[in-house]
Amino acid sequence: MSAIIERLKELNITLPHPPKAVGAYVPVVTVASLAFTSGVLPFGEDGSLEYTQQIDSSNIEDGQAAALCALKNALSLLNENLGGLDNIERIVRMVVYVNSQAGFCQQPSVANPASELLVKIWGEKGKHVRTAIGVSELPFGASVELELLVQMKTQ
Amino acid sequence: MSAIIERLKELNITLPHPPKAVGAYVPVVTVASLAFTSGVLPFGEDGSLEYTQQIDSSNIEDGQAAALCALKNALSLLNENLGGLDNIERIVRMVVYVNSQAGFCQQPSVANPASELLVKIWGEKGKHVRTAIGVSELPFGASVELELLVQMKTQ
Amino acid sequence: MSAIIERLKELNITLPHPPKAVGAYVPVVTVASLAFTSGVLPFGEDGSLEYTQQIDSSNIEDGQAAALCALKNALSLLNENLGGLDNIERIVRMVVYVNSQAGFCQQPSVANPASELLVKIWGEKGKHVRTAIGVSELPFGASVELELLVQMKTQ
Repeated sequence: MSAIIERLKELNITLPHPPKAVGAYVPVVTVASLAFTSGVLPFGEDGSLEYTQQIDSSNIEDGQAAALCALKNALSLLNENLGGLDNIERIVRMVVYVNSQAGFCQQPSVANPASELLVKIWGEKGKHVRTAIGVSELPFGASVELELLVQMKTQ
Repeated sequence: MSAIIERLKELNITLPHPPKAVGAYVPVVTVASLAFTSGVLPFGEDGSLEYTQQIDSSNIEDGQAAALCALKNALSLLNENLGGLDNIERIVRMVVYVNSQAGFCQQPSVANPASELLVKIWGEKGKHVRTAIGVSELPFGASVELELLVQMKTQ
Repeated sequence: MSAIIERLKELNITLPHPPKAVGAYVPVVTVASLAFTSGVLPFGEDGSLEYTQQIDSSNIEDGQAAALCALKNALSLLNENLGGLDNIERIVRMVVYVNSQAGFCQQPSVANPASELLVKIWGEKGKHVRTAIGVSELPFGASVELELLVQMKTQ
């Protein structure tokens, strides 16, 4: 069994089905040893957005859950497009755009559980650079949009 | 004749003159097999911004036209800086920042015609990952700002 | 002595101590010949944010100073993580997110002094692509957030 899928089981994480693209783009492109994901939204298993609240300090847990949901979708897309998550050498970069109410500036708190999950899964190789910013509007009113850049193992 | 320039002719597309940088940066940098563009604005041939509306559902067509305009400028800059568009192996990534009115969340619709044009030009190799987000302010009030990352053919 | 540290001295620039990460991420990741920084904030030497104004045309100088401050922090992080700034072959890309008041659209002016400093330090190899955008909220109310992508010398 895949070492990473086994690790996800230990963490009680089930990867969702990979979400469909919501436009004229593809979910993952690989170039040299890098794989880029599109901006991924917090879709649920039924194909509708699970998190559409604009985030402020009163619902920061929803923002964190939305970021985790988007991350799991991103991992599911990488799993499908890279022939399995075991082909990832390391996580390079995560960007988290947080749909933020005026005056809300805890974007790092929104992103932290997603960052921590990557380290729980991949250990040292899960440590990544990160940009978290607040934006005023996201596609379909999503609470967060999240991108990953990963390095692949050389064959 | 260049295969890509010929394809642009079939699509009735004329590349504009490459726009001038509006700050202390360069339009394109190549590293290994990758070429990055700066954020490109929807400038017209006269050097002034053609699209400065903030986008909402009432003027979404302006947003789409602005994204197409910025994309053509980006392609013109790549054409000039890479020794021709035929040196592009594939389109890797497009980011579209949409200057969005409060409550507007159709950023994917704004970006789609630009994504579709890349596929019309390059076919399978035009398919790319994409991030579309809504922001509150863009340089000079531009309706969109757009970035490309492309892979170059190895010589 | 390091050629770049010497050049910084000529420019009367002292690198600050590298700031601590403000979340579950690392400041720099290298992959192949590329080094990515996290989004860097304008922290001062005492570890608190030096610039937290939202920027408009009345305080654009504060925005420029904030971008320079964030850039020096980013260079300090690269210096620490790459074994010295002399290991940088060239600057590839800078992104400047400007915490912008409604109606403020001079993001390129905010970013220019930082872009110019890179060229003062590295000359031709300091020229980079750039994206400058306005956002509504940044972590902890920072005036700017800034990212660098650099190419490293091959050993």
